[in-house]
Amino acid sequence: MRQVNVGVIGCGYWGPNLVRNFARHPHASLMAVADVVKERAERTGAEFRVPLVTDDAQRVIGSSSVDLVVIATPVWTHYELCKQAINAGKHVLVMKPLATRTDKAEELCDLAQRKGVLLAVDHTFIFTGAVQKIKELVDSDELGELYYFDSVRINLGLFQHDVNVLWDLAPHDVSIMDHLMGCLPDEVTAVGMCHGGSPTENIAYLTVRYGHSFLGHVHVNWLAPAKIRRTIVGGSRKMLVYDDMEPSEKVRVYDKGVSFLADPNDSTEEQYKPLVSYRSGDMWVPQLEMKEALSVEAENVISAIRGRSELIVTGQDGLRVVRILEAAERSIQSSGAPVKIRPAIAAA
Amino acid sequence: MRQVNVGVIGCGYWGPNLVRNFARHPHASLMAVADVVKERAERTGAEFRVPLVTDDAQRVIGSSSVDLVVIATPVWTHYELCKQAINAGKHVLVMKPLATRTDKAEELCDLAQRKGVLLAVDHTFIFTGAVQKIKELVDSDELGELYYFDSVRINLGLFQHDVNVLWDLAPHDVSIMDHLMGCLPDEVTAVGMCHGGSPTENIAYLTVRYGHSFLGHVHVNWLAPAKIRRTIVGGSRKMLVYDDMEPSEKVRVYDKGVSFLADPNDSTEEQYKPLVSYRSGDMWVPQLEMKEALSVEAENVISAIRGRSELIVTGQDGLRVVRILEAAERSIQSSGAPVKIRPAIAAA
Amino acid sequence: MRQVNVGVIGCGYWGPNLVRNFARHPHASLMAVADVVKERAERTGAEFRVPLVTDDAQRVIGSSSVDLVVIATPVWTHYELCKQAINAGKHVLVMKPLATRTDKAEELCDLAQRKGVLLAVDHTFIFTGAVQKIKELVDSDELGELYYFDSVRINLGLFQHDVNVLWDLAPHDVSIMDHLMGCLPDEVTAVGMCHGGSPTENIAYLTVRYGHSFLGHVHVNWLAPAKIRRTIVGGSRKMLVYDDMEPSEKVRVYDKGVSFLADPNDSTEEQYKPLVSYRSGDMWVPQLEMKEALSVEAENVISAIRGRSELIVTGQDGLRVVRILEAAERSIQSSGAPVKIRPAIAAA
Amino acid sequence: MRQVNVGVIGCGYWGPNLVRNFARHPHASLMAVADVVKERAERTGAEFRVPLVTDDAQRVIGSSSVDLVVIATPVWTHYELCKQAINAGKHVLVMKPLATRTDKAEELCDLAQRKGVLLAVDHTFIFTGAVQKIKELVDSDELGELYYFDSVRINLGLFQHDVNVLWDLAPHDVSIMDHLMGCLPDEVTAVGMCHGGSPTENIAYLTVRYGHSFLGHVHVNWLAPAKIRRTIVGGSRKMLVYDDMEPSEKVRVYDKGVSFLADPNDSTEEQYKPLVSYRSGDMWVPQLEMKEALSVEAENVISAIRGRSELIVTGQDGLRVVRILEAAERSIQSSGAPVKIRPAIAAA
Repeated sequence: MRQVNVGVIGCGYWGPNLVRNFARHPHASLMAVADVVKERAERTGAEFRVPLVTDDAQRVIGSSSVDLVVIATPVWTHYELCKQAINAGKHVLVMKPLATRTDKAEELCDLAQRKGVLLAVDHTFIFTGAVQKIKELVDSDELGELYYFDSVRINLGLFQHDVNVLWDLAPHDVSIMDHLMGCLPDEVTAVGMCHGGSPTENIAYLTVRYGHSFLGHVHVNWLAPAKIRRTIVGGSRKMLVYDDMEPSEKVRVYDKGVSFLADPNDSTEEQYKPLVSYRSGDMWVPQLEMKEALSVEAENVISAIRGRSELIVTGQDGLRVVRILEAAERSIQSSGAPVKIRPAIAAA
Repeated sequence: MRQVNVGVIGCGYWGPNLVRNFARHPHASLMAVADVVKERAERTGAEFRVPLVTDDAQRVIGSSSVDLVVIATPVWTHYELCKQAINAGKHVLVMKPLATRTDKAEELCDLAQRKGVLLAVDHTFIFTGAVQKIKELVDSDELGELYYFDSVRINLGLFQHDVNVLWDLAPHDVSIMDHLMGCLPDEVTAVGMCHGGSPTENIAYLTVRYGHSFLGHVHVNWLAPAKIRRTIVGGSRKMLVYDDMEPSEKVRVYDKGVSFLADPNDSTEEQYKPLVSYRSGDMWVPQLEMKEALSVEAENVISAIRGRSELIVTGQDGLRVVRILEAAERSIQSSGAPVKIRPAIAAA
Repeated sequence: MRQVNVGVIGCGYWGPNLVRNFARHPHASLMAVADVVKERAERTGAEFRVPLVTDDAQRVIGSSSVDLVVIATPVWTHYELCKQAINAGKHVLVMKPLATRTDKAEELCDLAQRKGVLLAVDHTFIFTGAVQKIKELVDSDELGELYYFDSVRINLGLFQHDVNVLWDLAPHDVSIMDHLMGCLPDEVTAVGMCHGGSPTENIAYLTVRYGHSFLGHVHVNWLAPAKIRRTIVGGSRKMLVYDDMEPSEKVRVYDKGVSFLADPNDSTEEQYKPLVSYRSGDMWVPQLEMKEALSVEAENVISAIRGRSELIVTGQDGLRVVRILEAAERSIQSSGAPVKIRPAIAAA
Repeated sequence: MRQVNVGVIGCGYWGPNLVRNFARHPHASLMAVADVVKERAERTGAEFRVPLVTDDAQRVIGSSSVDLVVIATPVWTHYELCKQAINAGKHVLVMKPLATRTDKAEELCDLAQRKGVLLAVDHTFIFTGAVQKIKELVDSDELGELYYFDSVRINLGLFQHDVNVLWDLAPHDVSIMDHLMGCLPDEVTAVGMCHGGSPTENIAYLTVRYGHSFLGHVHVNWLAPAKIRRTIVGGSRKMLVYDDMEPSEKVRVYDKGVSFLADPNDSTEEQYKPLVSYRSGDMWVPQLEMKEALSVEAENVISAIRGRSELIVTGQDGLRVVRILEAAERSIQSSGAPVKIRPAIAAA
């Protein structure tokens, strides 16, 4: 396949960014755009000279001149549109989250495999220079054994109709954490609350436990006075802070740590000896790849369809994120009671 | 009583700060200092010309020339030393936390009441200009209805022998939150983890629910690469950020908020209308009282003993903080399961 | 005049921003765009459906369907193009600086007056919400008597061919200072230097004296490791910091100052008394108008041409800025020797 | 000499810090303290158990049990006290600036040499971990050829009686710059102004030219709303920012720079080609020595007196700083006219 023909469904907030990046790709041809609000589809279609412009998603899915269907619609429509597109034999790239229920997400993964098409999930942050650098540091053991992942993503945000703050913002943080860990956690707890008449949670705290030595935590909030997007990753050798609000120095790697000296079972007279030795060295801010994340993602998806590389974010990655968020949702409904994750997998 | 005679037990890290502030108080006389490590008592005693210098706490408690016993010793000794001092008819000021078990803390409160002595707890932050200003803003309804309290206190910290990070750092945040709320919450959940051979938790997340509209959250961590001490308080009218690492502009008050427009039960066509209207106005950094918190606290304790004012942080305040921390500890032990607080009180 | 017909010369870095803002204005019609690099004109022309697209500036200037000529070309072409456009009876908006010589700038001002057309200079920063707020604070005497204006605009910048860093960056700061002061200074000194083979100065310091009580200073630098754009305005009552790198809290107003207590001619024993009393109050961050500066500027220019309001940045404003920069240039050539400004005017 | 006997004159703001650091030094013995305000001498003397406590500087200078006289008095007394102490055969450490006139500073250097005593100047910042690291980076050619030194030291500061802001604050920055350069500049220009009734300049800008390729600039201000202490050093290979207000990450080294591509004498068609290529790499924050600067300085002075190492800041270093400041003062008096430095030396 020389050229990949692309159809995009959804021209709201995010869709036009996807359109723009596929339109610029040398091996992609933008063939169709759809939006229920016709004028949005028309505006986008005119700017990029798209042959088919429609308010009917089915015309994109059914078009014989489309190889890849990009889905940028509200979350509650993801499952149905993905299923239709996969059934029509199309490759699919769908905005996060893949779906809002684990069983639906699993069904989509299975279906894509059976149909022999690619199912990609738009976890955009995975393709940023910052997260690529962090992944590289983790994989090369620069940080040592990973201890924790702590992420804060708060703002006076855009309250959503169809999802709460957890499903709106946490997929970013959970997908980054999942990308670093590459496996499912054991257990999730979460607490959330609705304020000021909001029908859905506008603040949520999500805790994720992997085994007995790694803890993940995500704080998402639509009702915060300051915009904070900061992730800390702690390891046995080094620790890093990823501050996405910094214009250029986003990732700081600290050569800091502790080593335990005293045996905690020591007798009482040891109580006044120092317990740990601290190590504090240089701090380092690596230069990051500055390409727009979506263009890197578009390149990966097109390249994977053309058989030239592996898909970086697959349906399975999207499924793990959905599994964690669904467990968090259930924990919120039961006042923060822990919800197990792995047994469900073992059973599967 | 013209002059209050003070004896201090514990001359380690924090004790000398207490000693210095009582020594400077015009209506306090420093009569005795004790420390199990004799040299520490001697160094402090020499600097402030204290008559009685000893390695035996009992000599301070038993001294007829001491009215107020200040206890600045490891946490596990608080209960026993407080009980002895109160039984000896002394007023007591004890470092946070008051005790590590609710029943012990309650016993101390009851005992102090029966003996007719004052029991004060050193929740130092309550006496900072920053927290005093925040309390004033909350009490004058400047923030409107309170929505949430989110506090982060992390650092490459001093690992403690006898307590985990929760009992070491969270009393600061919980005491501030409790000071603003003035009542017990309903429920607590907490998760923590030990890393790198630490015998106790070095990272913990604590969530506290008051009724159905206020959520408190505290993140404490001894193993973080950057020092962050930041509290956000969200209200229906205004929100504030208290950043204790700022040298002077510690409290920022944001005239920001949202008002809900749409009825969440609206029909589907409403899904594309805006849900909320955002309000964004000036930001304001109030000038804060710059006095050292401990000197304000010493003044309050001395003044209360002399009958000139009310104690600001009482044993009851210390008890509520212990109750929350104990519940958090139990939640950590049971993988984050929610622990109810109020029923226990109703039963009491 | 109902509608203003606009022609734009120059579609390089800045031109398309001007085009976009005039294209969106309800009372402006974009009739022509020109650029010596034809493809740039064509790209811009296509995006905004401009009737006349050309590589010949004369066709824009000579077009009978153009009322306003917008000049966004390299600095050395400003004088000639402005003169031609004014002579053709067109209103003119020209990018900063108006010209590189005082006599040329004066000639343009005179010519525009004789021809009865408007001559506007694109000092974009004047139209930002930040500078509008600062101007308002100065005019309402909130800051008291003005003491100094200190501006730093440094970066790893785009080295220019035809101008040094002074003519490239300092017009921004000088135009803001001039806007606040509204009159010519007495004297200018400046120092600059070329580095690394650069043919023109890449670092310059400019000092401007107004009378005996106001000092302006501008530091511009193309070869700095960090991007800083920060202006401090000191007054007798209040002081403010304008940090253009802050995403939202750009202007901070400090209620700070000093009052002199001691008579400086006092006898020797006064040498140990305090000289001043310090005042330190709240800090305040006003909410700023968030409209794009160029759209506010386009609105002002169109409205002035339609006779509905006064031009905010006139040729006379541009002339004062050129006078200061030319004096600075001469000071740099003579190793920083002071260059008088006012006498030249008195003579004129 | 095993032990160095130290006498300190001046127990005001800075003196006690010097006293404390010499008192703690294992090879120094504090023998005498003096202050015209007797109580200040007594307070300091009591704290450090000093044998001779006096309000008469002559008794320190004349004492046979004193080897090193430390002078921490107002600037206008430096010359006279230094001369007396040197004439009495004492080694001298004097607070910055060494004197306020070049001829006086030279006289002191000559006198010390003739008398065979050490004359050290307290340029404290030279002994900080930050400046030591910067010096190391410069000396190891890590920054390449040095281009500029830009320093800002502003605050709502302590207005001084006997000196203007230039002589009060600029010695810090000038001494750091001089330490990096190690030679005299060619020319100095400076501008300053008095505000609000101040008898002396409260704001000053100082520019220093070394040859044709290095520019130094210092901005000092007692009347600024925010506290800024930031120095930028630009070099051909790397650049660094030293921010003294950062609690720990004070020095940031940027792997950034430019290389010139185009020949500036190229023909007109070259005007649209890029002039430079930009290089942007990692940023690095070296771990700094955290010892108190004054203790490092005291160690160096004591060690030099004992013949174990070279004095790091000599009278000659102090003299170069005075020469620059005196030239700046003269430039301020003549409205910023450039004042030559080197010829004066050639003549000497």
